[in-house]
Amino acid sequence: MVKIGIIGVGTVGQSVANILEKNKALISARAGKEITVVKGVVSDLSKKRDVNIPLFDDPDVILEDDSIDIVVELMGGMDEPYRIIKKALSNKKAVVTANKALLAYHRFDLQEIAGDIPIGYEASVAGGIPIINALKVGLSANEIMTIKGILNGTCNFMLTKMIEDGCDYFEVLSEAQKLGYAEADPTFDVGGFDAAHKLLILASIAYGIDAKPEDILIEGIEDIKKDDIEFAKEFGYSIKLLAIAKKTDGKIELRVHPALVSKDKMIAKIDGVMNGISVIGDCVGETLYYGPGAGGDATASAVISDIVEIVRAGQSSPMLGFKKPFQSENLTLVSKDDIESEYYLRMFVDDVPGVLASIARILGKNEISIETFLQRPSDNDKKATLLCATHECREKDILNAIEDIEKLSSVGEKVAMIRIDR
Amino acid sequence: MVKIGIIGVGTVGQSVANILEKNKALISARAGKEITVVKGVVSDLSKKRDVNIPLFDDPDVILEDDSIDIVVELMGGMDEPYRIIKKALSNKKAVVTANKALLAYHRFDLQEIAGDIPIGYEASVAGGIPIINALKVGLSANEIMTIKGILNGTCNFMLTKMIEDGCDYFEVLSEAQKLGYAEADPTFDVGGFDAAHKLLILASIAYGIDAKPEDILIEGIEDIKKDDIEFAKEFGYSIKLLAIAKKTDGKIELRVHPALVSKDKMIAKIDGVMNGISVIGDCVGETLYYGPGAGGDATASAVISDIVEIVRAGQSSPMLGFKKPFQSENLTLVSKDDIESEYYLRMFVDDVPGVLASIARILGKNEISIETFLQRPSDNDKKATLLCATHECREKDILNAIEDIEKLSSVGEKVAMIRIDR
Repeated sequence: MVKIGIIGVGTVGQSVANILEKNKALISARAGKEITVVKGVVSDLSKKRDVNIPLFDDPDVILEDDSIDIVVELMGGMDEPYRIIKKALSNKKAVVTANKALLAYHRFDLQEIAGDIPIGYEASVAGGIPIINALKVGLSANEIMTIKGILNGTCNFMLTKMIEDGCDYFEVLSEAQKLGYAEADPTFDVGGFDAAHKLLILASIAYGIDAKPEDILIEGIEDIKKDDIEFAKEFGYSIKLLAIAKKTDGKIELRVHPALVSKDKMIAKIDGVMNGISVIGDCVGETLYYGPGAGGDATASAVISDIVEIVRAGQSSPMLGFKKPFQSENLTLVSKDDIESEYYLRMFVDDVPGVLASIARILGKNEISIETFLQRPSDNDKKATLLCATHECREKDILNAIEDIEKLSSVGEKVAMIRIDR
Repeated sequence: MVKIGIIGVGTVGQSVANILEKNKALISARAGKEITVVKGVVSDLSKKRDVNIPLFDDPDVILEDDSIDIVVELMGGMDEPYRIIKKALSNKKAVVTANKALLAYHRFDLQEIAGDIPIGYEASVAGGIPIINALKVGLSANEIMTIKGILNGTCNFMLTKMIEDGCDYFEVLSEAQKLGYAEADPTFDVGGFDAAHKLLILASIAYGIDAKPEDILIEGIEDIKKDDIEFAKEFGYSIKLLAIAKKTDGKIELRVHPALVSKDKMIAKIDGVMNGISVIGDCVGETLYYGPGAGGDATASAVISDIVEIVRAGQSSPMLGFKKPFQSENLTLVSKDDIESEYYLRMFVDDVPGVLASIARILGKNEISIETFLQRPSDNDKKATLLCATHECREKDILNAIEDIEKLSSVGEKVAMIRIDR
């Protein structure tokens, strides 16, 4: 019998305990051994939990119990779970965690500390979708060209609603909050930080690269307006918060931002709270993985898959999939300025002669050529909305152009920019 | 160093050898050891192959070479590869195969013969999509409720073309043949047999059930007509050749047939030669896997992922994923007659009074209730086409009804039937 201790018995922890009980016969047939949760640790013992396991409020009850084989960390946070996982490893216990924030910062030192002791973290990215395993095992023959992920269900729910129902940002945010898809303070989700944490984990498996959230471009969906949605619909795009990892000329681009994505791409078809990840490998081409990115039972499915694999085999490769270093010491991140993309710009301008010419001149001066231009009348008859899509250009150039455009006296507000991922 | 011998150096075999060379540094970093193809075996040595390995025409050159660790079987066929794989296993060599026909018949006896010796077969289902691994590892916590797969790229290409361009069956078949997507004799693909072989493999991982192609319902796409395509488009369906495994009341349904699938389902969005598999698990809900189902490099990606996993870890679980028997001895297949579905019928009838009434009476007598009914004039003004969608009913009842309808003197040809998968 394999004994499990769960530290953090919230929504996911309760699902883990309950599914291991409900599907016990099936799971132990697959794992080869019976798997039993013997203890749980919670911070507040007075809160009622829907589980049949003894609960404690001291992690050491699990960490110092020699009979426990696998510690499942589901408490969230950073310093305390970091301490707990290190202690579990030093006590030779395998670890399973869903803690993406912790891994965004500490995956490489945890891998080193763990050595041969297994650490599973399938649940840390895209909930129930086995994307970690797909990258570590299923695609191991491939040099990964790009990863494009819809990794945050809150944002995808909101953007889908905006496109489908034409609601504005604050309407959908309040609906998402009512439905429990968004937190009271939604910054972590809508600001792109959650997606960035997950992206960093995937990029380490693909490339062996160590980067921290503060090293990469992260933009959220807060500035998406109805005009953008209408432009998207008119020109055959969907808007998605994309987490992108891309290898170009031996360098790695990592970025999270909203993007206009051609509607006929598979990744554009992933709607609502669902997650999806498109991976392009040099031999396999594109594969795509779709499913629920959150929820107790879906996330527990991933946690338990790690437990089963540890029971079956231990750990077949180090946590991040590389048994020997590869390139990673030479890999560098593409600087944010050097990213190349097509861009969409939205400008709210005075409807006076010469504005268009000034803007076109600024774009030209920055070596940006225009692909589509659209002028819309606004409710205010002295103002107009200009929408513009560019051909591919450098991030630095578009930012310079935007700065210059915003200096024009006829340009009222900040210029909105969304990258285009055709 | 790990030494590989490839038996069958055709399109996929050449890709395996070449990718292992091209991505050698990356793959050996992931695997922890250098992997080298040392010998290949072909049936015709005079044919030119694009590989840098010594070629022989006798499989024993590989099977009896003690220095070879892994035998990759890519020759196709049945009796000879079966013999070769058994000999490799008895010589304690791990085996990787892409041979779905062989596995459709011999996966359980090969699992038993193999014992602790690893057998990888990721490439046998859905080419480059790591669906075997997803089912064996990623979804191991779940009781699998349904698997719905688009597992044959030829059929999906043809059906997509028929829907998009309105071509008829024979036009697209000849286009598919020109493009190399369909064989000169396309029966194995268009008849649903290829998809059935793959379905049987997936079902064994999901349920531990042993079934043979002749045990299950297999229908191809040969009878799909323009009228069906038009009906599909008008009522918001796509037509897909679905391979379905489904657990109901402790029994397993396994079937391959064309189906009308609601356009808004993810599986309906998988178009062209691509493959996709939707899996519903009791905890995770729906996850879907999409990618290329064929092609040398894509299939080689799957073959190599098996090699890497064997080099990393050996085999963490028996071939089909169950370390101990589970239910499988009690599992039975749902009889073809007892399948329940909604159905679409197409009838070509004399345009005379009373026909509709007779047909409606027959359906009612067989306890089939109608959901949609549509009468279309035909080119021949004495004839009409009747299209009808039913509510859910038993397969046995619809077959009886069809038999009775075909006996009516006013019904000219065979009644066409397509199952509806809403």
